[in-house]
Amino acid sequence: MKIKMIFLSAAVIMSALGMAWALSIPVRPVPNGIEIPKGYRDWKIIASSHRTDNNTLRVILGNDTAIQAVRYGKTNPWPDGSIMAKIVWKDKTHEKWPTATIPGEFVHAEFMIKDSTKYTKTGGWGFARWLGLTQQPYGKDADFVQECFGCHQPVKDNDYVFTHPAVFP
Amino acid sequence: MKIKMIFLSAAVIMSALGMAWALSIPVRPVPNGIEIPKGYRDWKIIASSHRTDNNTLRVILGNDTAIQAVRYGKTNPWPDGSIMAKIVWKDKTHEKWPTATIPGEFVHAEFMIKDSTKYTKTGGWGFARWLGLTQQPYGKDADFVQECFGCHQPVKDNDYVFTHPAVFP
Repeated sequence: MKIKMIFLSAAVIMSALGMAWALSIPVRPVPNGIEIPKGYRDWKIIASSHRTDNNTLRVILGNDTAIQAVRYGKTNPWPDGSIMAKIVWKDKTHEKWPTATIPGEFVHAEFMIKDSTKYTKTGGWGFARWLGLTQQPYGKDADFVQECFGCHQPVKDNDYVFTHPAVFP
Repeated sequence: MKIKMIFLSAAVIMSALGMAWALSIPVRPVPNGIEIPKGYRDWKIIASSHRTDNNTLRVILGNDTAIQAVRYGKTNPWPDGSIMAKIVWKDKTHEKWPTATIPGEFVHAEFMIKDSTKYTKTGGWGFARWLGLTQQPYGKDADFVQECFGCHQPVKDNDYVFTHPAVFP
């Protein structure tokens, strides 16, 4: 009873302070052991894309090592330590601009982590994906990366990366 | 001759250090006096979009005030000090994934700057746009903002903003 009251008070105080009241649910690693990179939402932009085969909009963000590589034009190969995040949403039509497609339902966040020593079997890249807003790990076992790596074969000559950094002034 | 050699030496040194060799051309303000916000390329992501009426891909980034507003869900109205950058590229088809549209030629960077005191005539927003990689100011005179503001009338009830922040986990 006393504990319940303490929790309620904390909720009231946080609410009064206008603080975000989010449950911090831990995100489990994917079956190859990769943990979700923290703070990826704060990373800088590399590019965006729109896939009409599965009707999704994507933004590609990079950690500091990846962004530095982009700005120096050193992305083939990407340096060890580079991480790219691809954030994917279902297409949605803008309610006031019908020819604009905008991000709808969140689909997943997926990552490529460059470590040319650790991930020699998959082109130097560790692959990982977490599904939906609850960020469920993707893959039944560690072999799921074969699906990722298989799909990336057409861009072998681009260090297995589909993303081309967008041109900025 | 001596000056030329000094320039050459500087170029060689910078090149040897792997530094980006970019000419720093000052960007002129737009006709309403707004200066281009510095460092917008480093801002965090709010959303993306794809316009099929003019075949452009866009990412919408925000300064710290805008991002804080997004994360607290306080974006109608947006707080004073919020700045949104919309970065626009021409559509390009991915050479290895034909159903993927990716950023091609850079078109422009445009901004909405919230100051409910300064920009009372245009819904509390200052509008600005710079064209192309040379970032040429858009607009013949200060009245160019009427074009911007006119186009944003359909979203008057959303504080004149088309962008809906994308949902993140």
